[in-house]
Amino acid sequence: MIMQGNELTLIVFSNDLDKALASFVIANGAAATGKKVTMFFTFWGLSVIRRPEKLSVQKDFMGRMFDMMLPGNAGKLSLSKMNFGGAGAVMMRKRMEAKSIEQLEAMMAGALKAGVHMTACLMSMDLMGIAREELIDGIEIGGVASYLEAASSANINLFV
Amino acid sequence: MIMQGNELTLIVFSNDLDKALASFVIANGAAATGKKVTMFFTFWGLSVIRRPEKLSVQKDFMGRMFDMMLPGNAGKLSLSKMNFGGAGAVMMRKRMEAKSIEQLEAMMAGALKAGVHMTACLMSMDLMGIAREELIDGIEIGGVASYLEAASSANINLFV
Amino acid sequence: MIMQGNELTLIVFSNDLDKALASFVIANGAAATGKKVTMFFTFWGLSVIRRPEKLSVQKDFMGRMFDMMLPGNAGKLSLSKMNFGGAGAVMMRKRMEAKSIEQLEAMMAGALKAGVHMTACLMSMDLMGIAREELIDGIEIGGVASYLEAASSANINLFV
Repeated sequence: MIMQGNELTLIVFSNDLDKALASFVIANGAAATGKKVTMFFTFWGLSVIRRPEKLSVQKDFMGRMFDMMLPGNAGKLSLSKMNFGGAGAVMMRKRMEAKSIEQLEAMMAGALKAGVHMTACLMSMDLMGIAREELIDGIEIGGVASYLEAASSANINLFV
Repeated sequence: MIMQGNELTLIVFSNDLDKALASFVIANGAAATGKKVTMFFTFWGLSVIRRPEKLSVQKDFMGRMFDMMLPGNAGKLSLSKMNFGGAGAVMMRKRMEAKSIEQLEAMMAGALKAGVHMTACLMSMDLMGIAREELIDGIEIGGVASYLEAASSANINLFV
Repeated sequence: MIMQGNELTLIVFSNDLDKALASFVIANGAAATGKKVTMFFTFWGLSVIRRPEKLSVQKDFMGRMFDMMLPGNAGKLSLSKMNFGGAGAVMMRKRMEAKSIEQLEAMMAGALKAGVHMTACLMSMDLMGIAREELIDGIEIGGVASYLEAASSANINLFV
């Protein structure tokens, strides 16, 4: 029998801008109320935590394919609806600015500063050929076991 | 240390008909077994709880854009797959009728009657330019803090 | 007041190959650490647990439509992104083989062997005209009540 404490985990599976925003609004809100927050970035979600700078990482053919096809970093995410080839994402960002809502990159920096644990899924990194140095600073690396350990002591466990 | 009681929360992020149906089947099932249920409608999910009647609300340009592009209410939602420009959603509704499954609108009325708390996300309303009077009766307004408060005392917390 | 034990539930709503893989990685990881795991396959997710063999089941018009339009079994699922008419799914499977990651079918067999409970949603089966004999061996049938019972004693409850 495990008793749950004041903890929250999020699996960020998606690389949609809207879902990334929702994830960080929840994560930062929870951190602000003193909860221990752990975010797991897996599969397409790895795009959210990649560095904007291109690094000269040696990649195999499939790794180069993923690089070409997937958004390179948080600044290049699309909306899951109404994206219109990127115009929707640009308008959403402008709208957020007009409404004084923090942009995704600021939310991410805020999360790290607030002590939110951000973990990249090792199996997904291997699958997509993403190297550790391609991720932004402050990211831990872990597998499903480390997710389950964090989730076991949390009662708010979301899959986004 | 917080101990979880007999509570359930749902974040309804999507405006897909199929996901809205799944949300209300779970919510109403949980309410029927005596659970306290709270639903948070955020981002695209706001479409689910808008009034069918057009109101003459003053909107800025982006607000009018969202009005034009997004389904106006629960009756106009699309399927996430096999929608075929709306034909899929119509067929799904006919199929549900044939199988004596309640339609989404009836499920929503049932949820409110059963005491399910339905909360609209304030930040999303602001972002999309949706006014309080455009939402159906019985909806509360709240932010991430009110979501976290409800979720903290629940052990079934889903993101749909 | 219900106290949560060492349990995990997953609602598999999607028939995307990537989301099915994520579901079974989590389920099998949890089972390996001694958790009781229950998976509910609902709506599009029913495609994941259908038999590869065609059975001569009597179907009405809508049932035949669903049969034609939906992936017939786990081997025919598409990626939610980068699918390219099936090429993406094929390449993902090759990539997994190259990285010594189990294929979905092997993960599913492993889950059943490890004692993971796999339940098909009765309402969805009725809606889509899927008969019990069309599902792979080892699947239980249940409704929202059986989901809620399992989820009530779990603290990790995910909607995928």
